[in-house]
Amino acid sequence: MKTVKVGMVGSAFMGKAHSVGYRDCAFAFPYVKAVPVMKEICSLLEDEARAAAQRFGWERWSQGYEHVISSDDIDLIDISTGNNTHKEIAIAAAKNGKHIFCEKPMAMNAAECKEMIEAVEKAGVVHMIDFNYRRVPAVSLARQMIDEGKIGTPYHFRAVYLQDWIMDPDFPLVWRLSKDKAGSGAHGDLNAHIIDLARYLCGEFDSVCGLMKTFIEKRPLLNQEPDKPKKMGSVTVDDATVFLAKFANGAIGTFEASRFAGGHRNGNVFEINGSKGSVRFNLERLNELEYFDLTEDQKYQGWKTILVTEPVHPYVCGWWPSGHIIGWQHLFVHQVYELMNGIAEGKSPSPNFYDGLKCQYVLDAVEKSSANEQWVKVLE
Amino acid sequence: MKTVKVGMVGSAFMGKAHSVGYRDCAFAFPYVKAVPVMKEICSLLEDEARAAAQRFGWERWSQGYEHVISSDDIDLIDISTGNNTHKEIAIAAAKNGKHIFCEKPMAMNAAECKEMIEAVEKAGVVHMIDFNYRRVPAVSLARQMIDEGKIGTPYHFRAVYLQDWIMDPDFPLVWRLSKDKAGSGAHGDLNAHIIDLARYLCGEFDSVCGLMKTFIEKRPLLNQEPDKPKKMGSVTVDDATVFLAKFANGAIGTFEASRFAGGHRNGNVFEINGSKGSVRFNLERLNELEYFDLTEDQKYQGWKTILVTEPVHPYVCGWWPSGHIIGWQHLFVHQVYELMNGIAEGKSPSPNFYDGLKCQYVLDAVEKSSANEQWVKVLE
Amino acid sequence: MKTVKVGMVGSAFMGKAHSVGYRDCAFAFPYVKAVPVMKEICSLLEDEARAAAQRFGWERWSQGYEHVISSDDIDLIDISTGNNTHKEIAIAAAKNGKHIFCEKPMAMNAAECKEMIEAVEKAGVVHMIDFNYRRVPAVSLARQMIDEGKIGTPYHFRAVYLQDWIMDPDFPLVWRLSKDKAGSGAHGDLNAHIIDLARYLCGEFDSVCGLMKTFIEKRPLLNQEPDKPKKMGSVTVDDATVFLAKFANGAIGTFEASRFAGGHRNGNVFEINGSKGSVRFNLERLNELEYFDLTEDQKYQGWKTILVTEPVHPYVCGWWPSGHIIGWQHLFVHQVYELMNGIAEGKSPSPNFYDGLKCQYVLDAVEKSSANEQWVKVLE
Amino acid sequence: MKTVKVGMVGSAFMGKAHSVGYRDCAFAFPYVKAVPVMKEICSLLEDEARAAAQRFGWERWSQGYEHVISSDDIDLIDISTGNNTHKEIAIAAAKNGKHIFCEKPMAMNAAECKEMIEAVEKAGVVHMIDFNYRRVPAVSLARQMIDEGKIGTPYHFRAVYLQDWIMDPDFPLVWRLSKDKAGSGAHGDLNAHIIDLARYLCGEFDSVCGLMKTFIEKRPLLNQEPDKPKKMGSVTVDDATVFLAKFANGAIGTFEASRFAGGHRNGNVFEINGSKGSVRFNLERLNELEYFDLTEDQKYQGWKTILVTEPVHPYVCGWWPSGHIIGWQHLFVHQVYELMNGIAEGKSPSPNFYDGLKCQYVLDAVEKSSANEQWVKVLE
Repeated sequence: MKTVKVGMVGSAFMGKAHSVGYRDCAFAFPYVKAVPVMKEICSLLEDEARAAAQRFGWERWSQGYEHVISSDDIDLIDISTGNNTHKEIAIAAAKNGKHIFCEKPMAMNAAECKEMIEAVEKAGVVHMIDFNYRRVPAVSLARQMIDEGKIGTPYHFRAVYLQDWIMDPDFPLVWRLSKDKAGSGAHGDLNAHIIDLARYLCGEFDSVCGLMKTFIEKRPLLNQEPDKPKKMGSVTVDDATVFLAKFANGAIGTFEASRFAGGHRNGNVFEINGSKGSVRFNLERLNELEYFDLTEDQKYQGWKTILVTEPVHPYVCGWWPSGHIIGWQHLFVHQVYELMNGIAEGKSPSPNFYDGLKCQYVLDAVEKSSANEQWVKVLE
Repeated sequence: MKTVKVGMVGSAFMGKAHSVGYRDCAFAFPYVKAVPVMKEICSLLEDEARAAAQRFGWERWSQGYEHVISSDDIDLIDISTGNNTHKEIAIAAAKNGKHIFCEKPMAMNAAECKEMIEAVEKAGVVHMIDFNYRRVPAVSLARQMIDEGKIGTPYHFRAVYLQDWIMDPDFPLVWRLSKDKAGSGAHGDLNAHIIDLARYLCGEFDSVCGLMKTFIEKRPLLNQEPDKPKKMGSVTVDDATVFLAKFANGAIGTFEASRFAGGHRNGNVFEINGSKGSVRFNLERLNELEYFDLTEDQKYQGWKTILVTEPVHPYVCGWWPSGHIIGWQHLFVHQVYELMNGIAEGKSPSPNFYDGLKCQYVLDAVEKSSANEQWVKVLE
Repeated sequence: MKTVKVGMVGSAFMGKAHSVGYRDCAFAFPYVKAVPVMKEICSLLEDEARAAAQRFGWERWSQGYEHVISSDDIDLIDISTGNNTHKEIAIAAAKNGKHIFCEKPMAMNAAECKEMIEAVEKAGVVHMIDFNYRRVPAVSLARQMIDEGKIGTPYHFRAVYLQDWIMDPDFPLVWRLSKDKAGSGAHGDLNAHIIDLARYLCGEFDSVCGLMKTFIEKRPLLNQEPDKPKKMGSVTVDDATVFLAKFANGAIGTFEASRFAGGHRNGNVFEINGSKGSVRFNLERLNELEYFDLTEDQKYQGWKTILVTEPVHPYVCGWWPSGHIIGWQHLFVHQVYELMNGIAEGKSPSPNFYDGLKCQYVLDAVEKSSANEQWVKVLE
Repeated sequence: MKTVKVGMVGSAFMGKAHSVGYRDCAFAFPYVKAVPVMKEICSLLEDEARAAAQRFGWERWSQGYEHVISSDDIDLIDISTGNNTHKEIAIAAAKNGKHIFCEKPMAMNAAECKEMIEAVEKAGVVHMIDFNYRRVPAVSLARQMIDEGKIGTPYHFRAVYLQDWIMDPDFPLVWRLSKDKAGSGAHGDLNAHIIDLARYLCGEFDSVCGLMKTFIEKRPLLNQEPDKPKKMGSVTVDDATVFLAKFANGAIGTFEASRFAGGHRNGNVFEINGSKGSVRFNLERLNELEYFDLTEDQKYQGWKTILVTEPVHPYVCGWWPSGHIIGWQHLFVHQVYELMNGIAEGKSPSPNFYDGLKCQYVLDAVEKSSANEQWVKVLE
C-alpha cells in the first residue's frame, strides 16, 4: 500500500483536529489510494511539540518548522499555524518538493496567495486548502442535488457564520484580534468558510458590498501583572462583517460573520433558493440537510429533514449504521481521504490553492468595499 | 338560505369556543348548506348567561336549560356543560325534537351513552360529538393520506395528551378533580381525544391494558375561610392514565394522558407508523403535519414538515393565503360547518353519538383494566 | 359604552382581515374603551362591496369611497386599498374629520406621507398604520423583554421576510408587479414590515445600502385572449430586495425581502443579538418566541422556546387557556383594540403616521442606494 | 503510565465501535489513570480477525476466543459477540482473572446473569456493561441536573427506542431474528438501553405490564439457492415490545422498542417530568438536551435546548471548542475512560454486572407479563 509521510506544522486546535484526519483515514476508508503516516509534528516551543506528538500520535517532533520541511522522509507538509505564517511556510515547503495542505484562510491577502500559487506550480506539488465544510456529508449531498438539477436556477444564497466567544468585554486581546497576526477577525475566520461554500454550491462572485464592524475597541492585554492597573490594547480587526453579493449567474446573496451573536456557538447556517427547490444546513446539526422540493404536489410540499447517515450518502459508508451520527472531527477524515487520493493520482483535489485565491479575492473586495462604502467588483 | 337556530347550554370555556364556531361559520364558508343563528344561551346563573350572551353574540339568554330546550324557535341544542349533565340534557332535548351537538366525553360511562343513543334514534334528530381535533386541517389531511394509501398497513399508533395545569399542590379541588362530577380526570378529558383520533386514523380497538394514577391525593377545597386552617379534600380522579392497546387490524398502540407533564401546556401529539410511511402531529403546532415517505429514494428520505395552510388543504380555503396560520378556535368553525351540512342533509355527521359510545367503551375498558391489573377486551 | 362607527374602504384580502379585527375586538377584550361598529364597506364595484358586507358583517355598502368618507355617521375610515390610493383617500377622510386606520406601506414615497401627516395634523384626527406584526403576542413580549433590559446593548438585527408565490414564470402581471400601482414589489410589501419591526425593537436607522433585483422581467398580461399568442408585459418592481443597515445606536443589520424564496410561504423571521441575550421569531410559528439568556450559568444556557399563550403574555388573556394557540387573524383584533383605546383617549396609538413616514424614509433610502450602488443616509 | 492490555472478542459492528473507544481514550483524556493497549482481537473466522486487527489497529489476532482469554499478557476481555455467547466467555475469562467489559444485554436471561456475577465476584475482577448511552454528555448532564434537584419528584418517565431497518418483508432471517441466538428482538436490543436509562435517571422498577408483537412472522432464509423457490423461516423474536411501568418511587413510565417505526433510524428518545422540571433527549441529536424549568417566572418558561458542547459539560473538555459537535462513536471513548479509571482503582464502574442483572430482571418481567397478559412484579 502506498503511503504519504506527513509533517505537521502547528500543534494547537487545528493541529489536534488534523491529527484525527490522518489517524482515522484508513480506519474509515481502508480502500483509500494512499495511507498517511504521522511522521513529525513541530511547534514554536519544543515542549508543546513533544506533548502534541505523544497525545496525537506522531512518531517524532521538532521545534520550528525548518526541520520538518527539510526532512527527506516527509512527503506532505500540513500548515496549521496562524494566518500570517502560511505564505512563508508554504513557499519553503514547495521549494523542497513537499505537497501542501494549508489551513484557511489561505493567506493574509490575494498577493500572498499568488506567490504561494507560483511556488506550488513551479514545484509541481499537490496542494489543498482546508475548507473542511465541503466535506460534511450533508453539504456534499447538497452539491450532488444541485448537480442533479434539484435546485434549478439559483436565486438566493443566504449564509451566516455566527459565534459568540468574545462577547465578554474582559476577554483579552488574543492574536486573533490583531490585524498584523490574523489579517482580519470574523471576516477571514468565518466569512472565508461561507464564501467557499457559496462558490462550491452557487457559483462565482461578481461583486460585493460590505460593512466591517468592531463593537468593542479596547480589550485587556494578555499577561497582565497582578495588583497593577489593567493594561488595555486596541482591537484592530472586525468583530463582525456583513456583506451583500451579486453572483455571476444572476443570483444574489447575503453573508454575515460575527463573534457577537449571543447563543450561536458555531452557527454556520446557509440556504439556497432556486427555481426548483431549496436546501438549508446548520453546522450545529451537521448530520441533517433540509430540502424543499417545489416540483412536488402542492398538497405534500414541505421542508424535509434528511438525516444524512445512510450508506448511500457521501462518506457515510466508512462509519456507522443509519442514524448513528458523526461529529465535527469527522470532516477532517474526509478531507484527508480526498487529499490522499489526490496525492496518489498526482492531482490537487478541490478545494485547492486556486480556490483559496478566489476566496481571498472576495474577502479583499469586501474589505475594500467597507472602506469605500460602495460596491466593489470581485477580481477573477 | 336555510338557517339553524341554536340554543347553547353552558357559558364557560367551551361555551365561548363553540360561540366562535357558530359566529364564524358563514364568514369562512359562505357556501355552507345551513347558516347557524345564535338564538339563546343559558347558564346556571342568570348573570353569567347574560354576560355570555352580550360578549359572545347571542340574541337572548335564560337561566337553567329548561327554557332553551323547550323553545319552539330552537333547532339545535349545544351541550357545553360538565360531563355529568350531558345525558339528562341530551335526552330532554331529543324528546323535544332538537338536534344535538354534545361536548366530549359523551357521558359518564357507556350505559349513559346508550340511553342517549336510544333517545336520539327515537327522536330521529341529528347528533354530533365535539371531538374537534378531527377538524384540524393537518389531521384531516392525515386522514386523506391514509385513505390514499400513503401510510400502508398500520403498525404503531403512539399518542400522548400532556398538560401541566394542576401540578401545584396548592391548586384547589375544582369540579374536574371529583369523580362524581367529572367521571374521571385526565382520562376522560384527554384520553377521550386521542382515543377518538386513534379510531379516526388507525381503526377500532380490540383490547387495552391501563394504569390510572393520582400523584397528589389531597388538595385545598375551594372557598376557604380566611384566617382558618386550610380545609383539604380528596382528589377522586386520575392525574394521569397510561395504557397499551391492540387494534383490530393488528396494530399496537401506546396512550398517555397527564396533567402532571411539566412543560406541556396542551401537548396532544400522535404518530402513526405504517408499512409505507409515517405521520405525526402536535397540537401546539397545529398548522403543521410531519410526514415520512418510506417509498422515496433512500437518499432523499426524511421527515417533511408540511405547513397545512395551502388552498388545497382541508378547510383552508375559507381562511387566508398560504403561510397565514390559523389557531385553535378555528377547529370549532370547521366542526360547525360539518354539523350544519349534516343538519341540512338530515344526516348525523361523523363523529356522532355512535363514535362517542365507541370511545366510551375504550375509556371504560381502561378503567376496568387498571382496577384488575390485566388486559381487558373492548366491547363492540 | 362608547362606540366608533367604522367605514371600510376596500373589500379584498385586507378588507376581510380587518373585518375580523372589528368583529372580534369586544369579544376578546370586553373592557376596550370604545367598541367598533361595522357600519359601511365600499369597493370599486358595487357587487363586491355587497358581497363583502354580507359575508364580513357590515351594515351597509357603497361603491367608490366618496359616500363612506362623507357620511355623517362614520367616525373612522379604514384604508385597505392599493398603495397608490392611500394618500388621496386619507387626505379626503381627514378633511371630513374622520380618524384613519391605513394599511402599510403608508404611501408611494415619503413626500406622499408628509402630505398625509399635514392633513391629519390639521384635522386633529387619530391616525394609525397597520404594521400588524407589532401585535403578535410574541413580538410584544420581545419588546417588553428589551424594555426590561434582557437583551442589553443591541449588536445585530437580522431579518428576512420570505415568500414564494410568484416563482412560476407563468404567474401573470398583477397590480402588485407594476411600479405605478404598487410603488415597489417585495420591498414595500415585505421590507416595510421588517423595517417597522427593527424600529420597534432595535431603534432608528442611520444609513443603508441595498440591492433590488427582478429575476423574471417579462410576464403574461392578465386577461389574455384565448387562441392568440400570449401577450407579455414588463415587471417594473423588485422580486427581491436585500440591504445592510447601520443603526443610530451602533447596531448593524441585514434585511431581505423576497418573493422567490421557495419553501417560505410567509417567512417573516427576525433575530436580535445583544450584550445580555438574544431573541428570535418566525411568523409561521407566531405563538412562539425563542430567547437565549447570556447571563445564565454557562452549563444551562440554551435557546428557549417560549409558547406565548400564557395569561401573563400580551393580549393572551382575551383568548384561550395556555397552549391553545391563536392564528394570524388575531393580530388585527389586537390592532383594533389599540386603535379603539387610542380613539377613546384622543391619542394616535403607535405605530401611527409618524412611524409610517419613518419607515418610508428607510424604504426610499434603500431604493436610492440600490440605484447609486453606495450607502445612503436615512432622513430623520 | 499504567496500561491495560485489551483482548477483544468479536470483530463486527460492536468490535469496530469498541476499538474507537480504546484507540481514542488517551487522545481525549490524557489524564486517564490507565491507558488501554490494543493487544489482540479474535473472531470465529481468522480472516475476519486479521482484517479487523489491521483496520482497527490491534497488534495481533486469533481465531476463536480461547487464545485471547488464556494469554498471559491480556488484562481485560471485551465481549462484543452475540448475546447467547456472553455467559460462556465471561465465565471463562473471569476464571483466568481477566477484567471484563461486556456488551448489552448482559445475557439471555437473569439466571445467566447470576452465573456471570458469581464468576466475577469469585475472581475479584472488574466488570462493566456497555450501556453506552449513560456516557452521552447530554445524558450525563441530565443525571447531574437530577442530582442537583432540578427535576424534583419524578412523575413520568417516557421512552421510546425506534428503528426501522427490518420493515421490508424481504429482509432475511438474520441471527437477530432468532430467539435461540438473540434471546429476544427489539426488546433485548433496544428496551435494554432505555430500561438502563430509566434506572439511571428515574430509579428502580416496581412492576411492569407489556406486549410483545411480531408483525412479519415469516422471512426468507439467508443464503438462498438461486433459481429455486425462496425458502422461508419463522421469526421467533418480537418486532416491537411496549410496556407500562410503576417505579418504586411512585413515578410511572411508558416504554416502546420497535424495528417497525418508519422514519426512525436510531430514535432513542426519552423524557422525564418531575415536580420542578422536565428534561428530554433524542439520540439522533445527541449533542442537545432539552430542559423545562417549572420554577422560572411563568412569563419566561419554555423548553430550552442546551447544546451540550461547553467545556463545563461532562466529557466535553477532551474534545473540541463550544459548538463543535461529537458523534455516536465518542460514547465508547467515554465508556472506556470510566472503565480504565475503574480498573486503575480496582472498582467496577457503573453500569456493571449488577446493573446488567437488574436490567435483565425488567426484561424478563416484561416477557412474562406479555405471555400472561397481566402486570408482573420486577424481582429485586
